[in-house]
Amino acid sequence: MDSQRLTPSIQPSPAEQEGTYKLLPFILKPENIARFESGKVLIGDRRKYPFEQSFVSCDNIDDVARAIQDMVTQGSGPWLAAVNALRLLTCRHKAALSASIKRRAALLKALGQARAALVSTRPTNTAMKQRLDQIIFIAEEAVTKGDDVDKAVAGGITAMLLDIFDDYTLRARAMADQIKDGEGILTHCFGEAGFILSLAFAARDGKDITVYSPETRPYFQGAKLTAPAIREMGIKVNLITDNMPAHFMSEQKIQKYITAADLITLDGHVVNKIGTYQNAIAARAHDIPFFAFAWGRDERKKSRDDIVIEQRDPAEVKLALGTATTIDIVQACYPAFDITPPEYVSGVVTLQGIVSPYDLSGLQKW
Amino acid sequence: MDSQRLTPSIQPSPAEQEGTYKLLPFILKPENIARFESGKVLIGDRRKYPFEQSFVSCDNIDDVARAIQDMVTQGSGPWLAAVNALRLLTCRHKAALSASIKRRAALLKALGQARAALVSTRPTNTAMKQRLDQIIFIAEEAVTKGDDVDKAVAGGITAMLLDIFDDYTLRARAMADQIKDGEGILTHCFGEAGFILSLAFAARDGKDITVYSPETRPYFQGAKLTAPAIREMGIKVNLITDNMPAHFMSEQKIQKYITAADLITLDGHVVNKIGTYQNAIAARAHDIPFFAFAWGRDERKKSRDDIVIEQRDPAEVKLALGTATTIDIVQACYPAFDITPPEYVSGVVTLQGIVSPYDLSGLQKW
Repeated sequence: MDSQRLTPSIQPSPAEQEGTYKLLPFILKPENIARFESGKVLIGDRRKYPFEQSFVSCDNIDDVARAIQDMVTQGSGPWLAAVNALRLLTCRHKAALSASIKRRAALLKALGQARAALVSTRPTNTAMKQRLDQIIFIAEEAVTKGDDVDKAVAGGITAMLLDIFDDYTLRARAMADQIKDGEGILTHCFGEAGFILSLAFAARDGKDITVYSPETRPYFQGAKLTAPAIREMGIKVNLITDNMPAHFMSEQKIQKYITAADLITLDGHVVNKIGTYQNAIAARAHDIPFFAFAWGRDERKKSRDDIVIEQRDPAEVKLALGTATTIDIVQACYPAFDITPPEYVSGVVTLQGIVSPYDLSGLQKW
Repeated sequence: MDSQRLTPSIQPSPAEQEGTYKLLPFILKPENIARFESGKVLIGDRRKYPFEQSFVSCDNIDDVARAIQDMVTQGSGPWLAAVNALRLLTCRHKAALSASIKRRAALLKALGQARAALVSTRPTNTAMKQRLDQIIFIAEEAVTKGDDVDKAVAGGITAMLLDIFDDYTLRARAMADQIKDGEGILTHCFGEAGFILSLAFAARDGKDITVYSPETRPYFQGAKLTAPAIREMGIKVNLITDNMPAHFMSEQKIQKYITAADLITLDGHVVNKIGTYQNAIAARAHDIPFFAFAWGRDERKKSRDDIVIEQRDPAEVKLALGTATTIDIVQACYPAFDITPPEYVSGVVTLQGIVSPYDLSGLQKW
């Protein structure tokens, strides 16, 4: 996190330059994902979206942890809810110069306990861990200096968001520049702000585009998040089932395949929602390029061998929005992600523009 | 239809030889699809299967037509319900030698009207049209000869089923011989008796197989029909979502991809449920052969140009078992079928064994 960003600058940031914030649909505006307000953490309830735009209100750390565990939010939701949860503690402590050593120590201890409780909700979510640590570091600094801890934490969260939206903006601009007027774009699952902004930029640049959004079983993120968000921005979108992408490719309706990525290995393997891989295979068979948005570099994930595909509860495959699709005795499998090898990836969308998946390892920041 | 089949023969038929009938799961036994009993047509209700094994009881032709229209049955259900519906008329007429010319004419007129009403429920279902015509021809012959019309029609339906099960058996045997011990088999949608029997034969031959059954959105035929039917036969089956096949291929879990076909053109294009095509592309990318079961030869379908993909109501894509997956203003597309070109088809499963898709046009009977 670059706290310099909070100081005024003559140069507008990339996000300011593009007017990024105004373009975001409801579901991606940070205050609708999670915010601290009037002593509570409000978390946008993605289980009810798009049918309702409602919030879960949390009074304490346990409430926030439970909401994260109960899948109220996903994507960038868990870390944003988690860092805002820290303000439930800091807002009640005025750690001014006058505050006693005991009170300051108690606050830091409470923050550490909160971190542990929040991290335990999603042990594999490294973004949440890293960002909680960054905000706790800011709190510690403020305690040491005798500054207003709550103000420092609030500023830290804002700076973090500004940075992240600058990153989204840089990647989205690089992708938008590749999109041509009249193109059809296939995606998969919910591409978060990077992908969604690339569509918004392309549309604002005067390009007429049509998006094909597979519903993404078993959770229907494509039906519930992607298609409504794109529709809200006034861009044409067709919801399809997960078995249709290749058919529309064969009808020349699709010119680009673009997704987010949960992780990209240093040697260019794209780990993303189950289904990403088979669409990439179909895309190559139709000479359609596949672009995946990068999301930070992870030194520990060098190659395919460093990836363990998460196996979720197979019972979820046998349900559609809570209704059983088959009888109990039928077995099911639920690998949550798949791996698309670099030979199927035309470009990785990074802070430095579109990069070959074979040219990632030398890049310091994606 | 070969009415010779009704006369006793020294040679057992292919279906008798394989004990085909005993191997069939509930959903594929003809009497559970549609039967005439105690003056009514009973149609197995596939809308409720596998959760209930219930029947819709029809007292007259209109009831049967409505049931077919309401999607009570599908696959081979509509024609079997339709030919049994004719018995609602014939069972009430004793067209013996003594019957008046007027009564005989009235029966034939009623049969013609019934045909029209039934055909109008599924105008594109050529199997239903052809089989109704065959049974009406038998009724006319019986009227002319002064035979018992109802007995002749009942015998005609039985002979038709015996013939069809012989055909299923021949194709299934050819496919079963290709399946090896320990193999994983991907299918798509519901492969009807040909595919299901090939699994039953392979299992009885002592081969340990595991089937991967994609749920097949938007109607879930894979979840509702395929997976329960295979499970009932005691064969291992894993239900998966439609976005998973390529992932299991990449994990070497799948060695063959086998589906039914709604239609195969004379030049080897396989028309089948949407999703068949993208699985075939993924299969080729993993060196997995794709086999499609033939289902009769259609002279009018020479090439891809003779196929019009049926576009169904897009509203159905926005529902899962009746529950909305997205908001009303989101658009959707629903192509019901796709076309897999012959270069992705390793073999067509015919009455003459496994045939190259490039070698179909010379074959008289598939």
